[in-house]
Amino acid sequence: MPAEDQLRIGMIGYGFMGRAHSQAWLLAARAFELPVRPELTVVAGRNEQAVESFADTWGWAATDRDWRRVVERDDVDLIDICAPGDQHREIALAALAAGKHVLCEKPLANSVAEAEEMTAAAEAARGRGARSMVGFSYRRTPALALAREWVAQGRLGTIRHIRAAYLQDWIVDPNFPLVWRLQREAAGSGALGDIGAHVVDLAQFLTGQRITGVSAITETFVKERPLSDGTGRGPVTVDDASLFLARTDGGALATFEATRFATGRRNAMRIELNGSAGSVAFDFERSNEVHFFDNTDDSALAGFKRVQSTEPEHPYLSGWWPPGHGLGYDHTFVNQARDLIVAIAADTDPEPSFADGLQIQRVLAAVEASAANSSTWTPIAGA
Amino acid sequence: MPAEDQLRIGMIGYGFMGRAHSQAWLLAARAFELPVRPELTVVAGRNEQAVESFADTWGWAATDRDWRRVVERDDVDLIDICAPGDQHREIALAALAAGKHVLCEKPLANSVAEAEEMTAAAEAARGRGARSMVGFSYRRTPALALAREWVAQGRLGTIRHIRAAYLQDWIVDPNFPLVWRLQREAAGSGALGDIGAHVVDLAQFLTGQRITGVSAITETFVKERPLSDGTGRGPVTVDDASLFLARTDGGALATFEATRFATGRRNAMRIELNGSAGSVAFDFERSNEVHFFDNTDDSALAGFKRVQSTEPEHPYLSGWWPPGHGLGYDHTFVNQARDLIVAIAADTDPEPSFADGLQIQRVLAAVEASAANSSTWTPIAGA
Amino acid sequence: MPAEDQLRIGMIGYGFMGRAHSQAWLLAARAFELPVRPELTVVAGRNEQAVESFADTWGWAATDRDWRRVVERDDVDLIDICAPGDQHREIALAALAAGKHVLCEKPLANSVAEAEEMTAAAEAARGRGARSMVGFSYRRTPALALAREWVAQGRLGTIRHIRAAYLQDWIVDPNFPLVWRLQREAAGSGALGDIGAHVVDLAQFLTGQRITGVSAITETFVKERPLSDGTGRGPVTVDDASLFLARTDGGALATFEATRFATGRRNAMRIELNGSAGSVAFDFERSNEVHFFDNTDDSALAGFKRVQSTEPEHPYLSGWWPPGHGLGYDHTFVNQARDLIVAIAADTDPEPSFADGLQIQRVLAAVEASAANSSTWTPIAGA
Amino acid sequence: MPAEDQLRIGMIGYGFMGRAHSQAWLLAARAFELPVRPELTVVAGRNEQAVESFADTWGWAATDRDWRRVVERDDVDLIDICAPGDQHREIALAALAAGKHVLCEKPLANSVAEAEEMTAAAEAARGRGARSMVGFSYRRTPALALAREWVAQGRLGTIRHIRAAYLQDWIVDPNFPLVWRLQREAAGSGALGDIGAHVVDLAQFLTGQRITGVSAITETFVKERPLSDGTGRGPVTVDDASLFLARTDGGALATFEATRFATGRRNAMRIELNGSAGSVAFDFERSNEVHFFDNTDDSALAGFKRVQSTEPEHPYLSGWWPPGHGLGYDHTFVNQARDLIVAIAADTDPEPSFADGLQIQRVLAAVEASAANSSTWTPIAGA
Repeated sequence: MPAEDQLRIGMIGYGFMGRAHSQAWLLAARAFELPVRPELTVVAGRNEQAVESFADTWGWAATDRDWRRVVERDDVDLIDICAPGDQHREIALAALAAGKHVLCEKPLANSVAEAEEMTAAAEAARGRGARSMVGFSYRRTPALALAREWVAQGRLGTIRHIRAAYLQDWIVDPNFPLVWRLQREAAGSGALGDIGAHVVDLAQFLTGQRITGVSAITETFVKERPLSDGTGRGPVTVDDASLFLARTDGGALATFEATRFATGRRNAMRIELNGSAGSVAFDFERSNEVHFFDNTDDSALAGFKRVQSTEPEHPYLSGWWPPGHGLGYDHTFVNQARDLIVAIAADTDPEPSFADGLQIQRVLAAVEASAANSSTWTPIAGA
Repeated sequence: MPAEDQLRIGMIGYGFMGRAHSQAWLLAARAFELPVRPELTVVAGRNEQAVESFADTWGWAATDRDWRRVVERDDVDLIDICAPGDQHREIALAALAAGKHVLCEKPLANSVAEAEEMTAAAEAARGRGARSMVGFSYRRTPALALAREWVAQGRLGTIRHIRAAYLQDWIVDPNFPLVWRLQREAAGSGALGDIGAHVVDLAQFLTGQRITGVSAITETFVKERPLSDGTGRGPVTVDDASLFLARTDGGALATFEATRFATGRRNAMRIELNGSAGSVAFDFERSNEVHFFDNTDDSALAGFKRVQSTEPEHPYLSGWWPPGHGLGYDHTFVNQARDLIVAIAADTDPEPSFADGLQIQRVLAAVEASAANSSTWTPIAGA
Repeated sequence: MPAEDQLRIGMIGYGFMGRAHSQAWLLAARAFELPVRPELTVVAGRNEQAVESFADTWGWAATDRDWRRVVERDDVDLIDICAPGDQHREIALAALAAGKHVLCEKPLANSVAEAEEMTAAAEAARGRGARSMVGFSYRRTPALALAREWVAQGRLGTIRHIRAAYLQDWIVDPNFPLVWRLQREAAGSGALGDIGAHVVDLAQFLTGQRITGVSAITETFVKERPLSDGTGRGPVTVDDASLFLARTDGGALATFEATRFATGRRNAMRIELNGSAGSVAFDFERSNEVHFFDNTDDSALAGFKRVQSTEPEHPYLSGWWPPGHGLGYDHTFVNQARDLIVAIAADTDPEPSFADGLQIQRVLAAVEASAANSSTWTPIAGA
Repeated sequence: MPAEDQLRIGMIGYGFMGRAHSQAWLLAARAFELPVRPELTVVAGRNEQAVESFADTWGWAATDRDWRRVVERDDVDLIDICAPGDQHREIALAALAAGKHVLCEKPLANSVAEAEEMTAAAEAARGRGARSMVGFSYRRTPALALAREWVAQGRLGTIRHIRAAYLQDWIVDPNFPLVWRLQREAAGSGALGDIGAHVVDLAQFLTGQRITGVSAITETFVKERPLSDGTGRGPVTVDDASLFLARTDGGALATFEATRFATGRRNAMRIELNGSAGSVAFDFERSNEVHFFDNTDDSALAGFKRVQSTEPEHPYLSGWWPPGHGLGYDHTFVNQARDLIVAIAADTDPEPSFADGLQIQRVLAAVEASAANSSTWTPIAGA
């Protein structure tokens, strides 16, 4: 029987995301004052030796080779899905059926159909007290949460433009191997779902608006790559870059760009919003600052202001350090864990919901449909 | 009969561009060693008092109320067209017919048909020794001319992405009046032709590639504005913002954005090129520097390098100041005048030609066609 | 008897630094593969309730109100001194006498005499196998460790200039209260010892050179401040700002500036080195990047390069995230814990040593002496 | 007898500064509406062929090999001294005696004694209607003139810190030859007088305060350099770098740094002012912007604001281009010419006066005296 002040975590997967989540569960109740404390109860993974080593390092109390057993454990309150995207659906459905809260890494699924099924399950489970959330962790960057506050306060007025780009460069070398992320069956899509999904989420989160339609082009610059096993080359079956134009239900225009070929841009997740009353601009490569232009300033004194998102009154900063002492990539996961724990303890819905994740999936699907149809304007289903 | 070392200028128009051009003619042979020296022979304008005052200020030797007389003067070698776009065609055709060299401000014309006629005339006149050029002066920014050199030297390798934006904010206020630039009959288009044309030219100039097709959206955010005469409000008949995706004949993808609603961006003409061997990035708001990423660097030592385009060996710098002593917007016109004079004296074709201007006009027309047709992919005529 | 793979920590103090150190001990063996794992064995603090709450949050196995008992525990291998500066000497001497390894927060002591005594004790204890280190954690910022590598590789050539500043602004408001940091008895000095010490350490660490003499001015802008207990105002007895010129044994000139009155600069710890072959520049407000100018580049292609210190081959990055995914302030403490653990396990001396801390103390003392003596050039004792 | 609306210029010298001044006289009445128009009447220089070529290029109506004849011409109203510093005194005294207005390039003289004599002469001549000014042209950078307005409006409150540096790197190469600027007899001093003088002027101009004392170190890193005639190496007799601390009569502390060895810094003239109510920061390498921190902002919204100094209401912008269209180095000279012409026409004193130039000379002398005397604090004579 759970202690009242604990939230017992069962995590599925122990790769890059598993590590970031482990650190988040470890630090969340240390950095922040929380109503309940996450317990690292059990981690599941297929490779017994690897998962035990991982559990030992991070302090997980138990391991299991079968995620199904984890989902059914009585001493687990929340299932944290860090497995690859093609497993999300099955694990989430089982976890929700078992009455667990679910945190699912993004993208929610590899297809709209899967995401619809998961969303329906999440909504059903919600009636039984189970909460669910998708892990769009970048929302928890303090600078971006701060920008969201500004928009909500009306500091930008009517938003006319959204300029969003997620620029990386890790596969510019044509001899970079054909890893799973470059294969459609495993990854669903390429830059689009991996990083494009993040900026779609952020654009909508920051503006409070929804994308209503898109026009897109996509490209695979390097068509074949070396197989990892050294037996030759195989076809790249996902996009290297996806670019699209969009409109929102609030009347804004938008450009989106997701690419793994922006040489020199290591992790440039950028977003700029231009509104009638002000503008904001952000680049994750300088994640501890956000630039704000206040159009109500006298023009002789106006300019983009570099606001360091490290003031005590800024989002999430109660948990961290003094002004000017920046945070890193991993803090976004701690902040996310905090928000999820607070929501569960308060019996409220964490955000973004599975329905939010589904809507993003629909945007991604519309992008692919438009690109396949001469870039013709493609409305988002349900919008 | 002209002195052999003179190039006698007849300028049509004396507004903002007339002023920039006058300063350019005044300084070109002073900043640079030139084979011939431009003479400010005559300036034409309808308002006699205004044009005389202008001529007096800038040192034009004569004035005329009728540009036709200027075009026919024996003592004029070059006609410099700084009149509004809806007059370009008529003046250029007359000047070329009269055997004058022609410098025509951008955009070349207000329609593809006009531009085609002008291009045909320029090509015919060329056989008779008359040279013509379109005034895409931003090409003469040393930082951009330097970037062009890098591309031509192969420092970027195969270019995969072009990210071009021209962001301004001078009409965000809905009470900004309905000036001629916001009326289709006079201006041809809005942000698209005024500033979008510049980044189309630059993207093609820098890469040496041509755009082959586009997908676009355009918008007019503020539909009506106060009439200048105070008699109420009238409709805005041009685009406030135009966004488009493109592909080039070199296999690159591109995003273009031209807007007058990017609050806080005064004159942010930005371009970034990502290639297999390197990247460059530029923003006219910091026009004396260009950023270069060299992908042949060891990754531990790699980063975007801020190159100040003020070294003696940089383009145009022979005419100017020591390292770190920047140039301004107006220097681009002096540099342009220099290039034109050098080309004429050497009996070679200056660039960009009228044919280049026509091709840009076709891109703009395709943008409007795509936007009017559900953003459907629209090939560029002749590409 | 200790498990062979453990390093059992006894920490004295549980304030701001205690928290940063706790997180570091918690994460060090998780982020990095380490030969021994730190154990959070016991934390000492005077306020029983507060220290127990702290221990509970961070996972310290035990608490004690008396640091002397902690120092004498058989099951403690390392004493981590996070208590205020006026306690450093007594705790360090006791810990070293008890054969413990010691990590002492900076500055090493509040006076040269104390630091000399501690250094002598550390050197004596070293003969008995006890290692000691001063906590100049900023050295462990990857960007700065990377800059150190460049200097050591000769990429800067002969260093001529060091430009170091630590700029904060947290007491610009004259009604900010008279906290202990503004009182000489408790704090030793003001901006000088608190933040100036960091840039003195960094300048010497990065260059591998030692300061040989200084000329200084110091000032207290706000002479009296409100007492914390509301009973009026009391005198500020430390410096608000300290500025000094210096020379090094390598022939470089230097400026140092430590201030709490640089309005708008939240935590701008900046350092620039100019050498015959290159330069580096760093600002902690953008701590995930360091700028490098390579003077061996062709001047037409030269410029300060913004290197993101997040590549796999960069210092400390084996423990963290992919390129472009930055780290925060707290990661420097984890990196520091790693270095200390590795040194102890390898039976080598961690850096900076107590002798290094003493030398910095001598620089600070010379600054105060020069400022009190008409800024007259003051050699560093022992240099 | 002069036309009432003309100011007839006689310029002495035709080097780098002569060129910048010629362009300024040429453009001043074109860019700005001015009460009188400068006429390029005569330029003097020793090399007949060179000065005639120069005059021909820039449009000077006459030339003379002897500056004395120019000073005595009836048809000259203003003598513009662009000759080397060791001639300033003699020319200025003669010009003032002849009743001419005088513009003298900085530094005013090569010694305090010369500057005193010139100042006395200027004050005497002023009684007879002759105006005089020193050419600290950087004051006329719009961004800096704007910063001056902000200080004067009280937007910075009480200024506590001045951080001024003028960083160049043109003699880092030890084989750069022994030009006249590196010889004390001709140049007076090295980095100190050449570029340090500029930041001393700016610091005082921007704050409206005077330096009261200094503590300094100077250094010559490369002691011998190749003679220009190839006959071996000769001693460098001026400073390569001068660093000094200062205090002002307004209670501020300051650091000053002038160096020609800051590798990679082409022309980084930087100044930052920190006040109780706000801060400003400027770097000439990005001369079209100035950064302003408003300490009256809510701290959650505060940050350094990048103000582009190109708004119509900004200083000097009436003469130039639209927002975001930057100016260059040479525009400062045009702006300076404008200010001087306006002052003369209005019968008021232009700034900075010879007395201002003398005071700067005294600061430079105190820097050298302090450096020669163990950095001991050295008050400024007359302060």
